[in-house]
Amino acid sequence: MSVEEPGGDREQAVTDEVLASFAKTADPRLRQIMDSLVLHLHAFARDVRLSQQEWDAGIDFLTRAGHLTDDRRQEFILLSDVLGLSMLTVAINEPKTPGATEATVFGPFFVDGAPEVPLGGDLGHGAAGTPCYVSGQVLSPDGGPVPGARLDIWGADEDGFYDVQYPDGHTAGRGWLRAGEHGDYRFWTVLPTPYPIPHDGPVGDLLTATSRGPMRPAHLHFKVTAPGYRTLITHIFVAGDPYLANDAVFGVKDSLVVDVGHYRDTPAPDGSHGAGPWTRMGFDLVLAPEEAGFRAGA
Amino acid sequence: MSVEEPGGDREQAVTDEVLASFAKTADPRLRQIMDSLVLHLHAFARDVRLSQQEWDAGIDFLTRAGHLTDDRRQEFILLSDVLGLSMLTVAINEPKTPGATEATVFGPFFVDGAPEVPLGGDLGHGAAGTPCYVSGQVLSPDGGPVPGARLDIWGADEDGFYDVQYPDGHTAGRGWLRAGEHGDYRFWTVLPTPYPIPHDGPVGDLLTATSRGPMRPAHLHFKVTAPGYRTLITHIFVAGDPYLANDAVFGVKDSLVVDVGHYRDTPAPDGSHGAGPWTRMGFDLVLAPEEAGFRAGA
Ligand SMILES: [Cu+2]
Ligand SMILES: [Fe+3]
Ligand SMILES: [Fe+3]
Repeated sequence: MSVEEPGGDREQAVTDEVLASFAKTADPRLRQIMDSLVLHLHAFARDVRLSQQEWDAGIDFLTRAGHLTDDRRQEFILLSDVLGLSMLTVAINEPKTPGATEATVFGPFFVDGAPEVPLGGDLGHGAAGTPCYVSGQVLSPDGGPVPGARLDIWGADEDGFYDVQYPDGHTAGRGWLRAGEHGDYRFWTVLPTPYPIPHDGPVGDLLTATSRGPMRPAHLHFKVTAPGYRTLITHIFVAGDPYLANDAVFGVKDSLVVDVGHYRDTPAPDGSHGAGPWTRMGFDLVLAPEEAGFRAGA
Repeated sequence: MSVEEPGGDREQAVTDEVLASFAKTADPRLRQIMDSLVLHLHAFARDVRLSQQEWDAGIDFLTRAGHLTDDRRQEFILLSDVLGLSMLTVAINEPKTPGATEATVFGPFFVDGAPEVPLGGDLGHGAAGTPCYVSGQVLSPDGGPVPGARLDIWGADEDGFYDVQYPDGHTAGRGWLRAGEHGDYRFWTVLPTPYPIPHDGPVGDLLTATSRGPMRPAHLHFKVTAPGYRTLITHIFVAGDPYLANDAVFGVKDSLVVDVGHYRDTPAPDGSHGAGPWTRMGFDLVLAPEEAGFRAGA
């Protein structure tokens, strides 16, 4: 194409050529995704008139993120989280079932192979913090119990760190259990505290450059699975937390904020902790039936 | 937000919240880029109704690309190249100077510290292939010479590999020289051949899944710098190459395609290669003045 052409035509020609290159894609869903990705990516570059140095900075950002990412650190999930793409994906895939517990971000701190604990057991495993008794019921939207549902739970300690952020490889503040025959669940862990997302990498640099903070309000992660139901990935948040209004990853939903009871000189429901301080959170988890989850493209 | 809200409102609320988070960004250019990036990224996810598994696949793709990237392999540049973002960025930043040589992709195979060769010297350094004599003039748009311009040149050997793709760390098929007092340049290298971009990683998987090929038509890379002029990053392509119409990275421009002369039993212009086969390409490089390059955001 000649240099006399207006820039817009020359630029559009690039986009058209790239779209045409995907015309022989066998999987129609993949073609749809690539076409849309190219259209929006190119529209972004044209909108901002992306300079060569800015393109360089983008390549450098992704390279640094890639080199920081390993089994215990996932900088690309953090990037998706701070750009709101993670929460948007949650919103797009949220079941429409009325009354189902709302979902939120998965986050980068889940690990496979966490230990099973018995119903009522302690998954704190020595994590530093105030003991917290968490209980409730796993229910279907009609209010019936979901007996035997599997609950995976993970949370940060009172210093704001997950076990995987410590170099020693110990497991604490995470585990899984099965709900009882009435869908009832209960376990001990430690009361979560606000924590910064890892911000010593490129995502942290982005937060700093945009005057955004790295803090997340205190929360406990849940992944709840049961046959016939959609997997629920959510948190419960501690009411009154100062960061509820500006979660670095946009994960807060009002329906997930839970009051915490603080106790001293009163035994817990299981008779333990009569002397020391302990806390309590109660939350029912309502699962959407599997059928409700399907949407175009899901 | 309540689950009774229509999905569109719930999704828009996420986007609005993320845009608001950038409101305190001190650098207005950075804010513009982040706002536009979030808008287009979110529009993409909403357009395709991105599923959680597809989001997972995207994170996995970037993670694999990051782990493959090192000093000698740059999977993120390849990704930008095959999505046409690299060529679009070139188009956006192309000087509007009439008559200036068109630019094309930089690619992932430039390395700093290549050896200097004298005017007329051989930068093939033993690379396998048919000797190729390349010559021309570095000019300003008014036709005047640009004496002493620096030319960095790099190309693949007859097996389609750059030196950095060999594990032994040798340097071949690359170097730099200075144009003479009339802007004249000449050097020996080897005739480039078509080659596949590295396709044993996630970018290669993407090309396969979309029935796209990895091949690039034969070309020689140039980076030309001179005080007072914009840096020119371009290629010359070998006329008649079977891949000119479907370059994997969309880099071909008609004005950069050059006829190759093939010679035997005729000495080259410098009197050498009288017996063996040799080839010749001629191309003038017209630099845009520096002032012409400035645009908003560049
Ligand atoms: Cu867009
Ligand atoms: Fe968390
Ligand atoms: Fe190349």
